[in-house]
Amino acid sequence: MTSFLVMDVLEKAGEMSRKGIDIVHLEVGEPDFDVPECVRGAVDEAYNTHVTHYTHSLGDPELRAEIASLYNREYGVNVSPDRILVTSGTSPALLLVTILLCSPGSEVILSNPGYACYKNFVLAAHAKPVYVDLDPAKGFEYNIDDIKSKINSNTAAIFINSPMNPTGAILSEKFMRELATLGVTVVSDEIYHGLVYEGKAHSMLEYADDAIVLNGFSKRFAMTGLRLGYLIAPQKYMEALQKMGQNFLICASSTAQKAGISTLRDKSDYEHKMLSTYNERRLYMIERLRSLGFVIPKDPQGAFYVFADASRFTSDSLKFAFDVLENAHVGITPGVDFGTGICTHYVRFSYANSLERIKEGLDRLERYLVR
Amino acid sequence: MTSFLVMDVLEKAGEMSRKGIDIVHLEVGEPDFDVPECVRGAVDEAYNTHVTHYTHSLGDPELRAEIASLYNREYGVNVSPDRILVTSGTSPALLLVTILLCSPGSEVILSNPGYACYKNFVLAAHAKPVYVDLDPAKGFEYNIDDIKSKINSNTAAIFINSPMNPTGAILSEKFMRELATLGVTVVSDEIYHGLVYEGKAHSMLEYADDAIVLNGFSKRFAMTGLRLGYLIAPQKYMEALQKMGQNFLICASSTAQKAGISTLRDKSDYEHKMLSTYNERRLYMIERLRSLGFVIPKDPQGAFYVFADASRFTSDSLKFAFDVLENAHVGITPGVDFGTGICTHYVRFSYANSLERIKEGLDRLERYLVR
Repeated sequence: MTSFLVMDVLEKAGEMSRKGIDIVHLEVGEPDFDVPECVRGAVDEAYNTHVTHYTHSLGDPELRAEIASLYNREYGVNVSPDRILVTSGTSPALLLVTILLCSPGSEVILSNPGYACYKNFVLAAHAKPVYVDLDPAKGFEYNIDDIKSKINSNTAAIFINSPMNPTGAILSEKFMRELATLGVTVVSDEIYHGLVYEGKAHSMLEYADDAIVLNGFSKRFAMTGLRLGYLIAPQKYMEALQKMGQNFLICASSTAQKAGISTLRDKSDYEHKMLSTYNERRLYMIERLRSLGFVIPKDPQGAFYVFADASRFTSDSLKFAFDVLENAHVGITPGVDFGTGICTHYVRFSYANSLERIKEGLDRLERYLVR
Repeated sequence: MTSFLVMDVLEKAGEMSRKGIDIVHLEVGEPDFDVPECVRGAVDEAYNTHVTHYTHSLGDPELRAEIASLYNREYGVNVSPDRILVTSGTSPALLLVTILLCSPGSEVILSNPGYACYKNFVLAAHAKPVYVDLDPAKGFEYNIDDIKSKINSNTAAIFINSPMNPTGAILSEKFMRELATLGVTVVSDEIYHGLVYEGKAHSMLEYADDAIVLNGFSKRFAMTGLRLGYLIAPQKYMEALQKMGQNFLICASSTAQKAGISTLRDKSDYEHKMLSTYNERRLYMIERLRSLGFVIPKDPQGAFYVFADASRFTSDSLKFAFDVLENAHVGITPGVDFGTGICTHYVRFSYANSLERIKEGLDRLERYLVR
């Protein structure tokens, strides 16, 4: 197994916190919200009725029906619940998909920048990550010709992610429509869907019925600790995926699945309130970072990240992130965790923290930078 | 990805049940018990204190300390909690270990018969399963020379499992001691530890500090639906395993981990009562199957299975299992799910069902066989 990127800043920030140092965590990729209130009742009911055993290997049929309804309601696509596999988080689902699609020698097209872990899934399947650069000047949108130029007979898949980590950018309908015509399986990580403040995130399934979608409850419903995700795949892959799920994962948590059902049926204003809160933080953070001298080529539209050009302060984002952590006690993620090129002078700020803490963190950063 | 064994009988039995047909399920590999009582309180407390977020990527430090204590208490081995990785069940842990140890072309030594899924982990890592036959006449023990004869420069690991699925056999100290001297990494699946009725199950760590152990809460504590397992590995592998865990699994359920802590600290008579109940069923099933004409070469000592020679009735265990399901409405697992050779005329009976249902199932079987 090849070497892994070491997420040192994240680890070091956690370590400093555990030692009692007051760190403002703007490096985390995890919602700071509580789970929806309905979760508790659903989990209680699961225990009361002894739903503590293995579930259907594709996942609780009611949960899969609710996920199918969600995709119908939000994107107008018809997905049979038989095309859904529920997993212990979205990451294990991506692992199954990558093992399914790749053989040694396969190539997978990834974006640069992009989510740090994608390449490690590809490497674990003995396949090769092939990068397409995103241009900050164009709002980190893909150039479809760049993708076309990377496709060859070894290309097993194109991974996309919208809203995107680390940029918060949303892929355009035009791009997704073009992507659907390339004849390569698109794996669309839609984990940040639901966390959108400007524009609209589209599902790849609107444009390609043969796309593979990854999604889950961790980001949209702040249910990270419950470990609940899913994939939606074309019927032709489902037998293999179900067997892989049965063999390698068995099933997702029975109680978390009941929590998932309740969450998708929830009529409370949980999502609305969470979105308003995130948006308030987003606007504050963008303005404040710009006033500090960071360049944000395009306002992030979704997720909970701002990917900012720190050229004014550094050409070494890793060193900069460590300096900021050690001297200002603020955790941020170096751009190099997400790729090469421009990433060497970019850093990612997360607003999955309270406005108060974000203010405190940016105050500290300001004092450090103007020292 | 190569083809998977289709566990057709299990699926078909489930399907018939869902259609309202009264099937006696003796095919299942899942405890029928409730989770320990302490689980509920621990999960409540986790929700009360908002422990619904990502945990340490190796797992909750308190849980890892309790697992280390368990291994010290039961086997006298000293394991640092830093050598433990907690996962969403034992299977994902094995997937990480297999990906870690294997490259394309690697070989992994498995037993025949053995747990049906092992070979699929090996195949997913583009490695080759290499089988060592177990002899029923010798109580399904390994012959160490058979293993030696299969070792070559491509051998990446030897997978063992004791108490063993499907035979319920426990590996002897003598064998484990010899195995430790072969210079090959032993991956010891100890998931049925704690479910032992005769003799004592030993941990491979007693004989080889560089073994990799897999274990979890699903079988011993009937916590299948909570998805909680772990691995113990040599320190030299931990950085890679932690990164793989972070990347591919993120972490195990935060609430399940709290449940796991409470379970390992539990002073109730839960385990004792469960063991007595299993043992009563075991003794009943062995006697009854023998009286029906099945041959059981050696009484199973652990787990909750009886692997029985059905030569008197069939030379095609798959057809036999389907016939029994369709005609007697009893689910059993065909030997061919576990291997080749003798497996063609063996079937596996599970006693993870109530004594009443086991009696009913064996009554039905008797009526069918003497028809």
